[in-house]
Amino acid sequence: MYGVVLAGGSGTRFWPLSRSEYPKQLLKIFGDQTLIQVTVSRVSELIPSKQLYIVTNPKQAEQIRFQFPKEKAACPHFISEPFGKNTAAAIGLAAITLKQKCKDGVMVVLSADHYIKKTDAFLKMLRLASQVAEKGYLVTIGAKPTRPETAYGYIERNEALINEAAAYGVARFIEKPKRETAEALFRKEEVFWNTGMFVWKISSILSEIEQHMPQLFRSLQVIEEAIGTEQEESLCRDVYEKLPATSIDYGILEKSDKIAVIPSDMGWEDVGSWSALDEVLARDASGNIQIGNVVNINTRNSTIYAGKRVIAAVGLENIVIADTPDATLVCTKESAQDVKKVVAFLKKENKEEHRTHQTVIRAWGSFTILEEGEAYKIKRIVVNPKSKLSLQSHRKRSEHWIVVSGVATVTCGESVYTIQVNQSTFVPIGVKHRLENSGETPLQIIEVQNGTYLGEDDIARYEDDYGRV
Amino acid sequence: MYGVVLAGGSGTRFWPLSRSEYPKQLLKIFGDQTLIQVTVSRVSELIPSKQLYIVTNPKQAEQIRFQFPKEKAACPHFISEPFGKNTAAAIGLAAITLKQKCKDGVMVVLSADHYIKKTDAFLKMLRLASQVAEKGYLVTIGAKPTRPETAYGYIERNEALINEAAAYGVARFIEKPKRETAEALFRKEEVFWNTGMFVWKISSILSEIEQHMPQLFRSLQVIEEAIGTEQEESLCRDVYEKLPATSIDYGILEKSDKIAVIPSDMGWEDVGSWSALDEVLARDASGNIQIGNVVNINTRNSTIYAGKRVIAAVGLENIVIADTPDATLVCTKESAQDVKKVVAFLKKENKEEHRTHQTVIRAWGSFTILEEGEAYKIKRIVVNPKSKLSLQSHRKRSEHWIVVSGVATVTCGESVYTIQVNQSTFVPIGVKHRLENSGETPLQIIEVQNGTYLGEDDIARYEDDYGRV
Repeated sequence: MYGVVLAGGSGTRFWPLSRSEYPKQLLKIFGDQTLIQVTVSRVSELIPSKQLYIVTNPKQAEQIRFQFPKEKAACPHFISEPFGKNTAAAIGLAAITLKQKCKDGVMVVLSADHYIKKTDAFLKMLRLASQVAEKGYLVTIGAKPTRPETAYGYIERNEALINEAAAYGVARFIEKPKRETAEALFRKEEVFWNTGMFVWKISSILSEIEQHMPQLFRSLQVIEEAIGTEQEESLCRDVYEKLPATSIDYGILEKSDKIAVIPSDMGWEDVGSWSALDEVLARDASGNIQIGNVVNINTRNSTIYAGKRVIAAVGLENIVIADTPDATLVCTKESAQDVKKVVAFLKKENKEEHRTHQTVIRAWGSFTILEEGEAYKIKRIVVNPKSKLSLQSHRKRSEHWIVVSGVATVTCGESVYTIQVNQSTFVPIGVKHRLENSGETPLQIIEVQNGTYLGEDDIARYEDDYGRV
Repeated sequence: MYGVVLAGGSGTRFWPLSRSEYPKQLLKIFGDQTLIQVTVSRVSELIPSKQLYIVTNPKQAEQIRFQFPKEKAACPHFISEPFGKNTAAAIGLAAITLKQKCKDGVMVVLSADHYIKKTDAFLKMLRLASQVAEKGYLVTIGAKPTRPETAYGYIERNEALINEAAAYGVARFIEKPKRETAEALFRKEEVFWNTGMFVWKISSILSEIEQHMPQLFRSLQVIEEAIGTEQEESLCRDVYEKLPATSIDYGILEKSDKIAVIPSDMGWEDVGSWSALDEVLARDASGNIQIGNVVNINTRNSTIYAGKRVIAAVGLENIVIADTPDATLVCTKESAQDVKKVVAFLKKENKEEHRTHQTVIRAWGSFTILEEGEAYKIKRIVVNPKSKLSLQSHRKRSEHWIVVSGVATVTCGESVYTIQVNQSTFVPIGVKHRLENSGETPLQIIEVQNGTYLGEDDIARYEDDYGRV
């Protein structure tokens, strides 16, 4: 059995905690682990990490890889799409990748950012679904509804499949309903939430793609032939550019006659908005969910995500506050779906706050922008042990580095030297330089940039451990 | 005619914009000028700055003096109380200070942070009040109520004074009333809001203090004898320590038989809370007051004070959001009075956020704390032209300085040298040093401190332009 985790979230619904380059699956909403880490460890009993493939796009890949350090045992594989082109393309690319490895087998498609309360019921369901999939069915997973939710799609089951316990044919898929329809659906025994998880054989899904999405199938064949060659990446990009962005639901599931559904009572939730947290997180005696540096005066039934900054909530009811260093959301719970309008506005205005956080994760560590002023910019840079940035130079800025923890190995022009805590160095404009942490503890430096232009794109790379030259 | 501006606000009501060391009179709520600047310029036609005295306490003095640069013409005098001891002591201290300068004269007592819409009506009222005060009355100023406000005290007038147009005796003072009482008071022709502004002769108020507050009078006599001597400051401190904190209303006005009231329709407001802004500021078509980097999605009748950070307000109604770099308030308008509970909590927990902003104004310029980490702290320091910090040293930290604008004259040990934009210098632990801007444009440096202790109190001063040695 192989696992495929779709990890291409858009980062709009949990803004400002999520950003387009830091989507929901990277948040630690339910505990110490990020949602994608939880997703991987949840299936580990059934699907070990060496059989698990995470499909990412380049914008998010670095942040997602960071979740699974190579040195740890539980490091899955990654499949990198050149762009996000909806679920049909992502699943197709995963299917041909798996086909190369194992010819055929059962493929479980999971979302990276779902909540599942009952892991045992979930795994039991997967085992059953695998058996049904072996017989050629495309198995969709239904969850028992607990309320007339308008934010989820629904599946109405048909007759039970002959000889299959708890697996059914599918009468129809129902898109996110309006309130009245949702009430009616909720009352029907044979209707379930559509979890967006699927189980099928690699050969089954590829043959259905061939039949119902022939353009996608031919494109996948082109990529398949190039896998492992030098052309793979550029060819995949060319092919993807021309692909329509179609969902697997619309492209295959609604058209195939091999669809089955297995309902499960596993406590599944998509948790698609700030207000949806109420369904899954414990609230305190006043009905609040409250994290971080909060001063609460008479506030009830509200959700407050704070960090280091003080957030004072006074006399509020049914309000969501989510705070980050560069942006704060204040929203009524009933308007939680409109948070995407904020993100759309910021995107239209080309503001960084929709795209990245002040702290940006890189393969070698991270950097945090502390302040940008006229002709200067201040960053805190953390370099992981045994890691180094690329050998690089800048045309329009010089850099002062001051070590505040660890030891830095600095290349500057022809010199290589180390600087310790409380020592500084200077990198003039145009000089090739490199920052490296050859020690065992994290290196932290404060960088003060001076220059007429301070954009991240003023960088020429000469050598890089992460293929960015 | 002399003016006395009481400027000892506690900074609780407009938190987080106001702080205990940065109270309401320093805010630019109504335009480009701070409230105390507006207060001074409003009376300038009648009381030139050389006849104006601002009473401050040491915690706020530096920030308030900064409002009136010495080089500008409109620089008033300052009277510094060693501690805040309510209005009777502040007014008494101002009265003996004025008595030293001019023996006797009319003294107008103003609050530093009130809003007055109609300056002409206000000045006309002051002229009239001055005439009445000349005859020995203690004149209080009443404002025509426009609503049954529960946040203000009231004055009920008596008969008109013989031979005085529009001046009346006072029947009684009424403390901040409950809603029902306020409704009844609002319907009475002869009741006015108590503005807390007073006009009287220096000799009149001192003689009333002698009669009704003999302890205060004797204390003032002690201070008066020391004015201009070396003992003035320490003696004033000793005397103040023993003074009870009594309001002029309770101590004098409610007891004296020489009280008059002059009502005025001048558009006066105390603006005592975030929700009170609705009474004085224009709202947009959706009923919002909105400043700074706000993304507004379907928010109505709300007040949003943002700065550089993005504040997204989604679906809100009757909410106040006030954002600063280190703290954000979210509050219903009807709970606006409870903001002081937030401040009380922060004070109890000994959190800096009740006391200062991340940017702290000093006599020589300002500093902003950009980040504090383990064993390091980063500041942006701005030094005004022709200003310098004290010659100082630190026992537990070293400092790296990087110039990002202007030119710095650095004293470090025995050396004196200048550094320009993009140059840096290092001040080791224990070494005497001084930072100076001898140029004509502001100097900006980034300071990275390294050390085991980074508190502001690790400072030994050897020379200082501002008497802080």
